[in-house]
Formats: sequence, C-alpha cells, structure tokens
Amino acid sequence: MEDEREFIVTPWEVRGEVDYDKLIREFGTMPINDDLLNRIKKHTNDLHPFLRRKIFFSHRDFDWILDKYENNEKFFLYTGRGPSGHTHLGHLIPWIFTKYLQDKFDTELYFQMTDDEKFLHNPELSLNETINYAYDNALDVIALGFDPKKTFIFLDTEYMKTIYKIAIQFSKHVTFSTVKAAFGFNSSTNIGMIFFPSIQAAPCFFPSVLKGKNIPCLIPAAIDQSVYWRVARDVAPKLGFYKPAEIHSKFFPSLMKGGKMSASEPESAIFTTDSLEQAERKVKNAFTGGQATIKEQKEKGGNPEICPVYFYDYFLFDFDDKSLSETYNNCKNGCLLCGEHKERLAKSVKDFLSDHQKKREKAKNIIDKFILRD
Amino acid sequence: MEDEREFIVTPWEVRGEVDYDKLIREFGTMPINDDLLNRIKKHTNDLHPFLRRKIFFSHRDFDWILDKYENNEKFFLYTGRGPSGHTHLGHLIPWIFTKYLQDKFDTELYFQMTDDEKFLHNPELSLNETINYAYDNALDVIALGFDPKKTFIFLDTEYMKTIYKIAIQFSKHVTFSTVKAAFGFNSSTNIGMIFFPSIQAAPCFFPSVLKGKNIPCLIPAAIDQSVYWRVARDVAPKLGFYKPAEIHSKFFPSLMKGGKMSASEPESAIFTTDSLEQAERKVKNAFTGGQATIKEQKEKGGNPEICPVYFYDYFLFDFDDKSLSETYNNCKNGCLLCGEHKERLAKSVKDFLSDHQKKREKAKNIIDKFILRD
Repeated sequence: MEDEREFIVTPWEVRGEVDYDKLIREFGTMPINDDLLNRIKKHTNDLHPFLRRKIFFSHRDFDWILDKYENNEKFFLYTGRGPSGHTHLGHLIPWIFTKYLQDKFDTELYFQMTDDEKFLHNPELSLNETINYAYDNALDVIALGFDPKKTFIFLDTEYMKTIYKIAIQFSKHVTFSTVKAAFGFNSSTNIGMIFFPSIQAAPCFFPSVLKGKNIPCLIPAAIDQSVYWRVARDVAPKLGFYKPAEIHSKFFPSLMKGGKMSASEPESAIFTTDSLEQAERKVKNAFTGGQATIKEQKEKGGNPEICPVYFYDYFLFDFDDKSLSETYNNCKNGCLLCGEHKERLAKSVKDFLSDHQKKREKAKNIIDKFILRD
Repeated sequence: MEDEREFIVTPWEVRGEVDYDKLIREFGTMPINDDLLNRIKKHTNDLHPFLRRKIFFSHRDFDWILDKYENNEKFFLYTGRGPSGHTHLGHLIPWIFTKYLQDKFDTELYFQMTDDEKFLHNPELSLNETINYAYDNALDVIALGFDPKKTFIFLDTEYMKTIYKIAIQFSKHVTFSTVKAAFGFNSSTNIGMIFFPSIQAAPCFFPSVLKGKNIPCLIPAAIDQSVYWRVARDVAPKLGFYKPAEIHSKFFPSLMKGGKMSASEPESAIFTTDSLEQAERKVKNAFTGGQATIKEQKEKGGNPEICPVYFYDYFLFDFDDKSLSETYNNCKNGCLLCGEHKERLAKSVKDFLSDHQKKREKAKNIIDKFILRD
C-alpha cells in the first residue's frame, strides 16, 4: 500500500500525499517520541500543540541540544524563508514554533531570507522582486512577536560580506559530486545554485564565529529543507563546529485535494496579505471530506482524515484538544455539516488574519530593529 | 616543430615554452598589429616599451575601446591579483602597463584581490593568509604610483556585498557545463571554485551598475586570465552590459631554464620583498644563453634568444631600444660575457628594488585611500 502512494519532497518541490514515516526512514532522521516529549516538557512546562499533535514529528540531535542546555550551554535558533512570494499560513507553522522555542529557552534567533536562492532558482523572478518579498515576508515574522533584542533577520544579499567568509570555508569541503547527489543538480544547473548550499549552511556557524566560541545550533524547519542540513552536518566537524541539530515539521495541507499549500496555486493557500473576503471565499471553496449531499452526510458522516477544513483546525485554528475531538466526532457521526464547519473555520481564519494584519502593519515601524546588515 | 613544443596555459598553471601565436589562435584573440599601435600612439604620443616590444601582444576589442574613447565615451580599467604569496617582478608587468593606460587615458581603475579564489584553489592556504597577502600585494600596486582618486583596490571578501549582487545575476546565465568546458572543472571541483568565475566577472559590470550607465571596460592582464573574460563576454549582453575588452601580456620569464616566473619556485623569481642580497644571488645563479667557458663564449657568442638575463633587460630593465640592441649584439658576438651581464643586471635589479621598497613603505601610509570596502 505504502509504496503505491507516490510523493516527492525536495527543497523546491513537495508533491503527492507525503508518507512521513517513510520520510524519516529515507532522510535518516529520528521520530519525536514520548520520551523526548517528556524531556522537553521538563523545560517548557507545557507542550506546544505542534508537539502534542506531531506536527513537529522528526529531529536530528534535538536530544543533544537538551543535553547541552541542561549543561548550561545555550543554543541558538536558525530558520529562514525563501522569499518567492507572499507568506501563506503554511509558512507560519515553523515560525510560530520557533517563537515558542525562543520564549521557552530564551534563545537568539537568526532568520535567513534567501533572496539570492529564489532569484537563482526561478527564471521568472528578478532580484528586486525577491528582495521586496523578503522585506514583505519579514513583516509576517515580526508580527508573530519575536523578541527584537534576540532576533536577527537578514537578507543574503545584504549580509553577504559576513556570510561569504564562512560560506567559502564551507564550500572548500563540498564538491560538485556531493551537491549533485544531495540536491539532484546536473550539468545544466547554474553555478549560483551550485554554490548556494554553502550560503544556506553558513548561518549554522557564523554566530559561533561572531561570538568567538562554538555555540550549538537548532534549526526548526519543514522537513523538505533537511537535505541542506545533512550536507552542513557532514562538513561542520571539518571546520571545527558542532553539527547543527534539527526539528522538522510536516507540511500545512492544501485547501484543495491533497498536497501542501503552495504559493504557485493561489487557491490552495491563504496568504497573510489576502483580504478577509478572499480568505473567506477560499475556505468556502475548499475541498472537504464530506458527502455529496446533506442527506448522505447525516447518514454516513464525513471523513475528517482527508478534509482540509478539519486539517486547518488541527494545524492552526483549534488548539483545544477536547474541542478538536468534538469536531472530529461530530463530523464522523454526521452532526457537523461541511457548510457549518466552513462557516466556523472562515470566521477563525478571518479573526486570525485581521489580528495578524494589524500586527503586520505595526511591524513596519519596528522592522529596522530586526534587520541585520553588513 | 611547433606542435612538438608542449605548453599549458590556464589561470592556475603555465608550463612549458609558450607559443604566443598559437595561443592567439587557440584563444581566438587578435594580435596587436601596427595599425592598432599607430592608432594608440595618436592618443598616447609615445608607445610604451611593452607595446613596442609586443610584451602586450594580443587583445579583444581594444579597437572598439578606442572607438568609444574617440566618441567621448570613457572606459574604465579592471585588473587584479590572486594573492597566494608575495609579489614578484612578473606580476608588475600588467600593473605597470595599467598605470600607463590610467595616465594616458585618464581612467578609473578597479583592482580586484581574489583572496577567496586563492583560498578555495589552494588546499594549503588559509583565508587569513590570502587576506594578508592581499594587503601585502596592494602595497606593490600602490608603489607603482596609481592615482588614489581614481584607483579602487578591493578584496573580494571585503567587498562581497557589492560583488555578490552582480555575481549572482551573472551566474544565473552560466551552467556547470559551461565552466566545465571553459575551466576544466569536474565533479571533484569544490563548489566555491565552481561559482568563482561569477566573482571574477562581476567587476566588469559593477562600475556600470554603481554609476547607473553602461561604461566600457578594458582589462589589461596576462593572457592566462583570458578564459574568465571569454565567459564574461558571452554573458554580458544578456545582462545588458558591454562586453569587456582585453589586452593581454606575455609571461615574465623565469630566471631558471624555460617557463615563467613562479611563486611556487622561489629561485625562479625575484620578489618585491626580497632583500637586495637575495635578489643579487638569484640573478647570479640564473640560467643564461652563454657558452660553457669564457673562451667558447668569446669565440661562438651567446644566445640571447634563450637567456633570462637578456629577457630581464627586454621586459623590464632596459627600455632604451638602442642600448638593448647593443646588448643583444655584444652577447651574440661574444663581447659581453655572462658574468658581466649578470653584474649589470644585478645592479639594475637592486636599484629597482631599493626604489620600489621605499615606495612600498610609503604606501603603508596611504593604503586606506585606495581600499574599497562595503
């Protein structure tokens, strides 16, 4: 059964219905198990719903990060964004979780905007466009409430003097063979993209360089980025640095049938810049796990397991486990009709967006506190 | 005959006895002919000995640069140095000629120190070492008397914020196939080196970007660098820039038998940091075109055509054509013995070094006027 479901997960493409257990085996990562959750809880008191619900489901060396932390060796957080368009709700998942980690462990965060990568990868995008998206996306990061004293957002093109010095030391240990195998590059790949894995690796190390001591690095990110850190982890010891640790999230589901939210299919995703009307329309037009008619729905019940409307509650709009469980049961037993459920979700989404957009506006006044430049 | 002489000319290696006519054919450049020399002379009044003696022997689009100049469209000069060690006399040839062009055409000069490349290429060199050599080598550039108001020396690692933005636009048009064919890169080449041709191409264009208008670029350099500009010329029109023009020098000969001066064979070259005693010893130990004994030399005469001591006069230490011709004839007819000739050259070299080293010391006080940083 499992092998019949085809899916692809690369840093540039996620397609098909993802089998996350299979990904853990293929990528050679570790599942987040109850032992690890209990250990996290000792430090955080409560467990974030993303952990309880296994939305963050996989890791490398997160246990080692806790060893270090318990040994009074603080880590820093590193995550980022490829600014190829506006931010959608799926992008917020790792960032919300990163904010939780910053709060609970009192850590610094380095946030990379890969304006260079998105320009190099996408024939349609100019560098000005990716730079503009980077600043636009930064507002969404800031709107989530990160601590300006401990959060450093940088665009690759504006912080390259610092990045490049580390990147070339990294790249001296990485051959074309390596990136060909890891990223599927070939003879037609442009030489900017070929070098780019060095740029994405550099922030694992430059806080250590800047502070003159080896600092553990934890990267919260969607699992599609894992290949970058795999190469980074291979090279780290050769440069005298700790291997970066990782904690991986699943992909936020599409509003359409199957797959993840995608900026290239605007109807599949709700963007933070959507108007409330647009957002409502997208929710109302969403695919569901419901039956064809109200009569059938009342008789047979719906399928929350395949329903984007239910997934939205699960991922982001109902963090109350009891309430979510009621939704699930009411859907299953036919008491909750898709129309009602969509109505309720549309309201939650609009409330969220309306609040987020206010914070996003305010972020424009404080963005300079966050941006790191050479 | 020609095909039996094996030689290799790449940006990283020059080996064997170079056939410059063959290089012109292989690289597809143009010889500098009398028509071009006469045209240059109209603007410069006198011809630099490097032109008269065909030490600068090849070009691409130098005639186009003169078209532009005559049409009141000023060009800028771009050259550079790979700082893998101290400067030797051979490195000075293109720089002395560049200074002549700056004086005669009143042009700006952008001088690139590829500290990144030398670090990436050489397994033995650390980045700190190449950075230190870059500053050391810059003193030699400045000692030649460039105009501080019109001369901009930059280390790649310190000017990367500016360079990178242009370099990635360049690299988007260059595939691995292209650099594989042009530079002989393969699967074992590190990804920093693979990207590097973009970094060396960028200064052909960034003065245009910084000034907001397309400015013709002329690159005086030894011919081994030509492959970089060939790639740069292919891409330039795709970015809306002029193709850079080039003027190429021959290699300064080794003091030992055959080949060019090489930093990797210290006895083959005189470094600007050599003591006068070291320099004298190297000249005295040089290979010559002389006979085995004084008696034979007086009877048969020497061979200036293969003699490094004569080449030194030809390239750098006797710019008086009449005097050089006398030296040639006196060697040929056995009147000039190798010992005498070496004695005379040693004095010239020591005079030159002594003067250069004073200017080099003074350069330490004004280096900040020349260095461009982000």
